[in-house]
Amino acid sequence: MASNSECDASSKLALRRVAIDTYHENVVYLNRDCALYRAEGFQALSKVEVRANGQKVLATLNVVDDVNIVRCGEVGLSEDAFLQMGVEDGHTATVSQAEPPESMAALFRKINGERLNRADFLAIVHDIAQHHYSKIELTAFVVATNRGEMDREEVFFLADAMVACGRRFDWQSPLVVDKHCIGGIPGNRTSMLVVPIVAAHGMLCPKTSSRAITSPAGTADTMEVLANVELPFDKLSEIVRAHRGCLAWGGTANLSPADDVLISVERPLSLDSPAQMVASILSKKIAAGSTHLVLDIPIGPTAKVRTMPDAQRLRQLFEYVAARMHLSLDVVITDGRQPVGFGIGPVLEARDVMWVLENDPRAPIDLRQKALRLAGRLIECDPDVRGGDGFAIARDILDSGRALASMNAIIQAQGSKGFNASQPHLGALTFEVHADADGVVTGIDNLHIARVARFAGAPKVQSAGVDLLKKLGDAVVVGDVLYRVHAEFPTDLEFARQHTQKCTAFTIGKVEELPHVFVEF
Amino acid sequence: MASNSECDASSKLALRRVAIDTYHENVVYLNRDCALYRAEGFQALSKVEVRANGQKVLATLNVVDDVNIVRCGEVGLSEDAFLQMGVEDGHTATVSQAEPPESMAALFRKINGERLNRADFLAIVHDIAQHHYSKIELTAFVVATNRGEMDREEVFFLADAMVACGRRFDWQSPLVVDKHCIGGIPGNRTSMLVVPIVAAHGMLCPKTSSRAITSPAGTADTMEVLANVELPFDKLSEIVRAHRGCLAWGGTANLSPADDVLISVERPLSLDSPAQMVASILSKKIAAGSTHLVLDIPIGPTAKVRTMPDAQRLRQLFEYVAARMHLSLDVVITDGRQPVGFGIGPVLEARDVMWVLENDPRAPIDLRQKALRLAGRLIECDPDVRGGDGFAIARDILDSGRALASMNAIIQAQGSKGFNASQPHLGALTFEVHADADGVVTGIDNLHIARVARFAGAPKVQSAGVDLLKKLGDAVVVGDVLYRVHAEFPTDLEFARQHTQKCTAFTIGKVEELPHVFVEF
Repeated sequence: MASNSECDASSKLALRRVAIDTYHENVVYLNRDCALYRAEGFQALSKVEVRANGQKVLATLNVVDDVNIVRCGEVGLSEDAFLQMGVEDGHTATVSQAEPPESMAALFRKINGERLNRADFLAIVHDIAQHHYSKIELTAFVVATNRGEMDREEVFFLADAMVACGRRFDWQSPLVVDKHCIGGIPGNRTSMLVVPIVAAHGMLCPKTSSRAITSPAGTADTMEVLANVELPFDKLSEIVRAHRGCLAWGGTANLSPADDVLISVERPLSLDSPAQMVASILSKKIAAGSTHLVLDIPIGPTAKVRTMPDAQRLRQLFEYVAARMHLSLDVVITDGRQPVGFGIGPVLEARDVMWVLENDPRAPIDLRQKALRLAGRLIECDPDVRGGDGFAIARDILDSGRALASMNAIIQAQGSKGFNASQPHLGALTFEVHADADGVVTGIDNLHIARVARFAGAPKVQSAGVDLLKKLGDAVVVGDVLYRVHAEFPTDLEFARQHTQKCTAFTIGKVEELPHVFVEF
Repeated sequence: MASNSECDASSKLALRRVAIDTYHENVVYLNRDCALYRAEGFQALSKVEVRANGQKVLATLNVVDDVNIVRCGEVGLSEDAFLQMGVEDGHTATVSQAEPPESMAALFRKINGERLNRADFLAIVHDIAQHHYSKIELTAFVVATNRGEMDREEVFFLADAMVACGRRFDWQSPLVVDKHCIGGIPGNRTSMLVVPIVAAHGMLCPKTSSRAITSPAGTADTMEVLANVELPFDKLSEIVRAHRGCLAWGGTANLSPADDVLISVERPLSLDSPAQMVASILSKKIAAGSTHLVLDIPIGPTAKVRTMPDAQRLRQLFEYVAARMHLSLDVVITDGRQPVGFGIGPVLEARDVMWVLENDPRAPIDLRQKALRLAGRLIECDPDVRGGDGFAIARDILDSGRALASMNAIIQAQGSKGFNASQPHLGALTFEVHADADGVVTGIDNLHIARVARFAGAPKVQSAGVDLLKKLGDAVVVGDVLYRVHAEFPTDLEFARQHTQKCTAFTIGKVEELPHVFVEF
């Protein structure tokens, strides 16, 4: 039912903070016996408008039968919504039926399979960023844009709208580089190596990352072991200008606020469609002020992308949208058959990264090699570098200790946590998983091993996770330790143990059974 | 993240009722400082399993920062979920990560555009009826089955699964009749005339109806002005056996519980796709034990179905699914250009219905004629009636007062409210809307006039609504009253007035501008 926001007939109520975290949905609570609720004919889950102190929020209505939560004469607001009002408990507020968000007609057209134009996407993304959508409406948008109905032009409109609705850095520089991976491979912390290498080469690399959504650690979670990652916009800007790079969490910078809201419904549905992935990643890069991006698409039997044709299709969608957004993009398709490095979980991954930077002999070779290759690609964006020289330049920066110096400067600038890679604090409760056959490791299930690390407590418990002692192609005999699980809490350890008992995540077989992927490097 | 419901590592907490009405979604509330919440790595909006007293509910997690709502060591449950447990406040409960509902894999396949089989729909509908789906998952299902992806076989699977998950009447009779309208036309209360007419003819007609979802009155809301409509399964059964008919609300009979849950997300999205409409209507008819159904599809510029090709396509979908369910179906396409009768709103519509039954000269002709035609169609399901005689038999039953007697018997049996059609209690606050031009009424917007009635308070306020004084084709001069609005509360009256000031819902023009529909009767 549409309605009438201009109406003056709304009653005055006392505002009350209801301390329920409703995850990016504004919820308003009215007592069932409240005269206003009864008179207005509000319906369950309908949209209402709350005004106070010149502020206005749209919220979804929940009805309450407990005066301890909200009394008659009060209007309760969920935590986020209450903060948006910027007033004290008890402040006078008015509540009225709300016009549905302006973009609702466009949403309905998308649900019915129509193509939307640029203005439609702008209106929808604006309403999402402003918290005007309920969980139901957000889900409808995410599902309606999940499949083939989004053509590549629409993906561009979506990405462009996401940029338009957030803040944007301008570095006043013709060359601002970044690297990104589409995710899905545990331990793949190359950003924490690429950033200090290219920064040491003198390139501007303002890297903002996400926290883990369904994985055992995101780059932001791992960097947080070393330094503070929640930096306000201005501080971030200052660090990048001083040190040519940063490794920060993207959330505080408000770069693509609509994307953060959409994740709240994508995660429970495990939805990660190409359209949403491309729009989400590229919008954040443009907002971060990047001009050149190297994008990592790993393929493998348990990676997000499983076949080369799928990887090529995704690459082309990224390339089309990046070109429309005037972002120079270099896509690399990489080996995603197994985790990268040894550690899975924030502290374990931070240890691997620091070992590589410190040229420690214990450093994982695959992490070092992958990071050097990606850094080399980025360095070749520098017009003064000869094609093909990037890798050697990157290696020289790393081997000489200049990458470590650059990383330490960034850590100091963001606020060091004093991490020591030779004495990492790892969860004291441990168990080991052993080989049950002789042979060669022919498979490591990325999804399963990630789940073991999550059950062990990662990423919430920084010191929890999985430490791999064997990788693809390694020869093993019965009883060899395949990996060690670390936890802080007995319950977590037990959950993880039960999960490994169902399945170890390792396949042991013959050398000729090793799966092959034919990737560029 | 998948998980581990067999695990014994879950902690014990005290159960607490949280008096928030969450509308068919089970919600569990944990304090952010609760040791269990911190140890388990639960995520916002993730699914958890609460067990107490041998009962188990799946619920969506909300995090709370207020000990007045839920303390550490307590687990709060929303009202519905708490009732499902059947225990007292303070009872010991365990909380653990939940396996996702079994049908989740099928849901994800549907989201990705795949065709589902019969077992998939059974699993999904079972989980929905058992409140295993969150609002996000319900919305995903509704949007993913909204468009052309549902073939007619899948619509049958959905309808069949809805029947399988609820109760079902068996009247032990070869002829159990019903009529239904797809909705969208205000005042269209023919069921309240058809039931007493066909019951008086001796046919079994156990009519269960819905309350208004987005309209100003459903049949259940209007019947409630005359009699009690919330009748338990056994009472309903007894009344039908005694009086050959009833007019009850379908909700208490638990005939298609999944449908009631789906409505909670369809309503806020204004979604009413052919697949869901057909499955919803036919599942309820089968569950009610009907063998023969007359289905009314009104068409018109502001009806749910706007063109004859659309109506024919919908008719064929209904016919295909009805045949698969062994239901004899007679679809009639009717004139949906304007409201039926004069009154819009529960009391006003009850008045119109009783005027027709009492053969009062003030009775609306269109409501009488339409009801007689539909009743005539149903009567012709009687093998002893000659084809073409149904209308005359229905008219004879109505004119003779036998329909009124039948209705009064049903009213008495359900519990009379003592309504008097000559002195209906109408909302005392009124205003009138006048013609602003001379001419002929050439259009009445069903959607707009319904909204005016809702703003005036209908259906919650029974006595509120709109009384039409002019209908299509009527000649008017400037200042003539087009309709009168009734309300009980000043706020409602003001909302309705503002809505009529934007637009009266009436179009006045020349006789030749009257839209035509070519329908069977």
